Amino acid sequence: MRILLTNDDGIYAPGLRALRKEIQRLGDVTVVAPATEQSAAGHSVTLATPLLVQEVFEDDDSSFFGWAVEGRPADCVKLALLELLPQPPDLIVSGLNAGSNAGINVLYSGTVAAAIEGAFYHHTAIACSLEYTKQARLDFPTASRYARQVVEQIIAQNPPAGSLYNVNVPPLELGVKGIRVMPQNVTVYNEQFDRRTNPRGRTYFWTGADFLCRSPNPDTDVTALSEGYITVTPLKFDLTDHSRMVAMRDWTWEFSG
Amino acid sequence: MRILLTNDDGIYAPGLRALRKEIQRLGDVTVVAPATEQSAAGHSVTLATPLLVQEVFEDDDSSFFGWAVEGRPADCVKLALLELLPQPPDLIVSGLNAGSNAGINVLYSGTVAAAIEGAFYHHTAIACSLEYTKQARLDFPTASRYARQVVEQIIAQNPPAGSLYNVNVPPLELGVKGIRVMPQNVTVYNEQFDRRTNPRGRTYFWTGADFLCRSPNPDTDVTALSEGYITVTPLKFDLTDHSRMVAMRDWTWEFSG
Repeated sequence: MRILLTNDDGIYAPGLRALRKEIQRLGDVTVVAPATEQSAAGHSVTLATPLLVQEVFEDDDSSFFGWAVEGRPADCVKLALLELLPQPPDLIVSGLNAGSNAGINVLYSGTVAAAIEGAFYHHTAIACSLEYTKQARLDFPTASRYARQVVEQIIAQNPPAGSLYNVNVPPLELGVKGIRVMPQNVTVYNEQFDRRTNPRGRTYFWTGADFLCRSPNPDTDVTALSEGYITVTPLKFDLTDHSRMVAMRDWTWEFSG
Repeated sequence: MRILLTNDDGIYAPGLRALRKEIQRLGDVTVVAPATEQSAAGHSVTLATPLLVQEVFEDDDSSFFGWAVEGRPADCVKLALLELLPQPPDLIVSGLNAGSNAGINVLYSGTVAAAIEGAFYHHTAIACSLEYTKQARLDFPTASRYARQVVEQIIAQNPPAGSLYNVNVPPLELGVKGIRVMPQNVTVYNEQFDRRTNPRGRTYFWTGADFLCRSPNPDTDVTALSEGYITVTPLKFDLTDHSRMVAMRDWTWEFSG
């Protein structure tokens, strides 16, 4: 099996390296990842600047590790599929992200966007992320072992091409209780900005650190994750609200030039 | 009616100014928009740099025009709702974008992401974009008149809070034939990269200019738009593929520590 591995934390992120070691047990892994951190990049792509590409080698034996791209996660997947990979991958994996990508964070996430970009091109794609608490250090090797087990079980089902999955590993210090298939939570975060004034008198804001959903719906990814479950969510990228289409077509639509 | 107007082409974009003039007929409009162009920003948000904010005034009479934010479209909406607006808006409008946001472009679009961000916060939000051909100059005033008419007709239906719509105006030189409620096309673009070498010998790529879907599905936004129809698509931001949930819950899920 040929696997394309990418992420949004950048090619030198420890989460990517840990996940690479695990999924190398499943096949040949090629890394195409952003040169620098691209957290919260969403599904942005690079139009106004060139995408510089650099080959990266292993520290220890100088063997080929992958390509670093001066762009967004979605750029990396596009470039990998259209230019860099000699053959199409059988699977695209994105992660392991430092921080969960559950709830509406799915839309902010560069990790998930990379997987969605893969699904655009009819590849099976799996985004993998690790939630953490402020109390504990992120244990990427252990979390990657869990993520790899979920990836293995998805692949064992022979999902149709273009299938898209979002996997989140709970904070390991909670003790992992099991695996749950859960829908995305859609409750907004309880966000705050920190308002400041710069030395030239201009107002600026820092986006608050507490990117948390304080009242998630039960039976969603966010809730299950907080209870110590690994969550798996099947995703799609048709944003049409089909349930409203019929009624809207009955509205009287008029226009004048 | 209080209306928040934003976009992804930046506060000085002609499309925003033209749409503002039109929707001022519907209520009090406050602009909070990116200071610079943010095309294809997707749903990215700014975490690593501060969001500088600048008040912008009308050229002619020095009256308040709005706030320019050194951030992404989604940052603008967040900041507007949480910090800048004295009262919550009754409606959020994003646009008028130079270029359509139909098909999978919905996911790359900063214009649509701004509307989605508004819907996160339970506001009715409408993204408006104008398709163009290389043959004709963009006529934002005329297209904004069409967009405003669609906005009016949506509002007349008293949609529930948090309703999200994506409106695209076809290239005006085609002659506008009508308004159609259409689902998002999900076919991938036929993309290409332009591979080059810089003076230092490093490989780089330009994302191709031809961001087109060459074989869209019939009965979708992309097809209707190309036939000269204004398209309206109801959107949602739950990306869960609910149709796959039940089957996936029946899979045997196992893990070992």
